[in-house]
Amino acid sequence: MGVPSLSVMLHEVIKLLYYAKCKDVTFLRIGTCGGIGLQPGTTVITETVVDGLLRPYLEMPVLGQIVRRPAKLDPTLVEELKSIAEQQLPQIPVTVGKTLCTQDFYEGQGRLDGAFCCYTEREKTEYLHHLKHVGIINIEMESLAFAAICNYCNLRGAVMCVSILDRLQGDQIQANKATLEDWQRRPQEVAASFIKSRLAKS
Amino acid sequence: MGVPSLSVMLHEVIKLLYYAKCKDVTFLRIGTCGGIGLQPGTTVITETVVDGLLRPYLEMPVLGQIVRRPAKLDPTLVEELKSIAEQQLPQIPVTVGKTLCTQDFYEGQGRLDGAFCCYTEREKTEYLHHLKHVGIINIEMESLAFAAICNYCNLRGAVMCVSILDRLQGDQIQANKATLEDWQRRPQEVAASFIKSRLAKS
Repeated sequence: MGVPSLSVMLHEVIKLLYYAKCKDVTFLRIGTCGGIGLQPGTTVITETVVDGLLRPYLEMPVLGQIVRRPAKLDPTLVEELKSIAEQQLPQIPVTVGKTLCTQDFYEGQGRLDGAFCCYTEREKTEYLHHLKHVGIINIEMESLAFAAICNYCNLRGAVMCVSILDRLQGDQIQANKATLEDWQRRPQEVAASFIKSRLAKS
Repeated sequence: MGVPSLSVMLHEVIKLLYYAKCKDVTFLRIGTCGGIGLQPGTTVITETVVDGLLRPYLEMPVLGQIVRRPAKLDPTLVEELKSIAEQQLPQIPVTVGKTLCTQDFYEGQGRLDGAFCCYTEREKTEYLHHLKHVGIINIEMESLAFAAICNYCNLRGAVMCVSILDRLQGDQIQANKATLEDWQRRPQEVAASFIKSRLAKS
């Protein structure tokens, strides 16, 4: 989980695809996230990604110098996924928006239920409302490296995560196990419909 | 793998230990690493940790602001582990030194064998020799958050990783599976001797 693991995995997969001589590849990152003012169960297709300082790039040290890679995602792929979801899976609530990618699940996401935190409940609430104000609708931990690596390698990529709680309402997940399992299948179902649609065209 | 995963895991474990009313806890992070000018198979006990810009703290965004946490480890624990290893496990080569913690396995560690890299072999070699020059003897991906969280929570912690290759000689692991398995047991054996020693005193 998190940017370092995602980065390692993508390096390995890209190498495998290169040796397998694959062309015209599309990557999908699917999973769960925390929503900001969203109905839990909503699948978010990420339009743009920002880091914890709301910057649209991945910043990492390479040979002792900071390298910045734009975390751009393919807008036509976002539209294609949204359209497929709306037409073929009308029972699944889907929205498009801006995603915050963090380095940590607890303090990095302004949670109060970690082992510790260095802020008050009021400061946390103000922060989450600020995120909403600047257009961020969900938080996860991998999309920044995913978008930056896809963009750097000229590979199409999309991020679809289902929101399993509304962070404006609290830090604890309220849904039961069966509901969570149903929600977690939603981005998978959109991905499956997208793959079927592509296969039908080929 | 990496700082975000380590951070989540430590939050969870610290919460469990709190509810279990544990006192006087010592954490050990054991695993593998790349060595800088070390004989592969050497177990490194980390004395100090630095990030990819050689800074001795964990830097992360919290509520939109950068927070810096000193990545300090307990020097008495380092000495205790070194002494136990030397006295009880003389067949295991052990050394103490400075560790570089990176955000990425490939470019973050100056590797040439990832899916891509933005530097030449010469630049990579100069970088690794610079690391050696400033006293860094190994590279891994978790110690910065481990040390920062332990220090912030006033918990004793130590990092022991076995080096499975010398990065000054290349990026590929040359050892066979049996040798690697033997090496990977080394920090575990030091940890087991340490635990036995503590139990004998209690």
